[in-house]
Amino acid sequence: MPAAPRDVRALVFDTFGTVVDWRKSIVDDLGAWGPTQGIQADWTRLADEWRGLYDPQKDRVRKGELPWTNLDDLHYDALCKLLPTMGLGHLTEAQRWHINNVWHRLHGWPDAVAGLTRLKTKYIIGPLSNGNIALLVDMAKFAGLPWDHVFSAETFEHYKPAPETYLGVARQLRLEPGQVMMCAAHNGDLRAARKCGLATGYINRPTEYGEKQAKDFKAEEDWDVIATSLEDFATQMGV
Amino acid sequence: MPAAPRDVRALVFDTFGTVVDWRKSIVDDLGAWGPTQGIQADWTRLADEWRGLYDPQKDRVRKGELPWTNLDDLHYDALCKLLPTMGLGHLTEAQRWHINNVWHRLHGWPDAVAGLTRLKTKYIIGPLSNGNIALLVDMAKFAGLPWDHVFSAETFEHYKPAPETYLGVARQLRLEPGQVMMCAAHNGDLRAARKCGLATGYINRPTEYGEKQAKDFKAEEDWDVIATSLEDFATQMGV
Repeated sequence: MPAAPRDVRALVFDTFGTVVDWRKSIVDDLGAWGPTQGIQADWTRLADEWRGLYDPQKDRVRKGELPWTNLDDLHYDALCKLLPTMGLGHLTEAQRWHINNVWHRLHGWPDAVAGLTRLKTKYIIGPLSNGNIALLVDMAKFAGLPWDHVFSAETFEHYKPAPETYLGVARQLRLEPGQVMMCAAHNGDLRAARKCGLATGYINRPTEYGEKQAKDFKAEEDWDVIATSLEDFATQMGV
Repeated sequence: MPAAPRDVRALVFDTFGTVVDWRKSIVDDLGAWGPTQGIQADWTRLADEWRGLYDPQKDRVRKGELPWTNLDDLHYDALCKLLPTMGLGHLTEAQRWHINNVWHRLHGWPDAVAGLTRLKTKYIIGPLSNGNIALLVDMAKFAGLPWDHVFSAETFEHYKPAPETYLGVARQLRLEPGQVMMCAAHNGDLRAARKCGLATGYINRPTEYGEKQAKDFKAEEDWDVIATSLEDFATQMGV
């Protein structure tokens, strides 16, 4: 087990998949809401196909096809494309926004609040997520995530893995990149952060995509910390 | 007593003077540190004269004489001008930065943490301060201020009372301006926020400047809420 880097002062976390269980949260939330609206749907299919559009949608911004557009609006655009393919093209705008805002109502993995609460006693903690600020603030209130500050792609008008995001956190906190640790369940996120000089913490989430998980079953490089949960991560970080 | 506006979802707070007692904090902190360094000084005079340079320094940015410069750097520049006038021109760079970072180590007024903790149960709460992000995050950790998110002039690259700051909060939270309340001990801050359509909360701090206080002894307009402390404010806001 590698020793926790000594100079780290701030920990920033990927949220979707690393801190919150988006898939179960979406299925449970909309599965309970649908019947109140007379809507029958395969919510697991919706969650998976919607998430499948996540990278292609962000790519439109990354490639300059779209001006800066935050995630709520990318989600809404993707949702409106998806609903007719599921026989749900008749939903009202209010119903579509209720569904869209499910990303603001995600629950933490069972270890998330306890682990973050411990980490907050010693470190500055925040998300560094492609979610927009309103989404992340609402999610924190909903799930009880005790962030000190919310860092978002919206803050920098660049989506991860753009260097502007990782280096922007260090600049705004007036820290050296090596004093900031990127913490994620996704090896690609950590590779990009390491290239910028950040410390790296891997939290294993091998069931994020359920039976559809295709990658990120384990740490693929010698990340500075490699943990099985946020509680285990807190222990390794000395809190 | 006016009723608390019903549609407000987020409360943003001026910090220096409204939430934290910068004057006593600076005098106490540096008064304890000075002797450890063999430095004798009139720290009250330093605090008052330094704060006296606050608006002129921000004006240099507002008028475009300086490109965007955050408050830590404006403070440092002002401090370096001030020290020789107090017989302290010999201090090292490390000592100057220790003094400069005293703005990161300010204590809340006695009612601050309790009031904010109550307000956080119902509202999104954050500073909206001319302090930069690192300063405000450090201050929150130091003083135990339970912010959901830090809004800073640095976020918008405009100093209050520029409309970009007040309207920027509403935009980032995806709220209407009237769903955001600016909370401050300074009538001028509230006037600017009201012009942008924000709700307004006045917290009276008639001793912010000690015996040198020259204004803001009371609410000068019919602000939506007028309170004597953050605890009283929380009560009026229904928490």
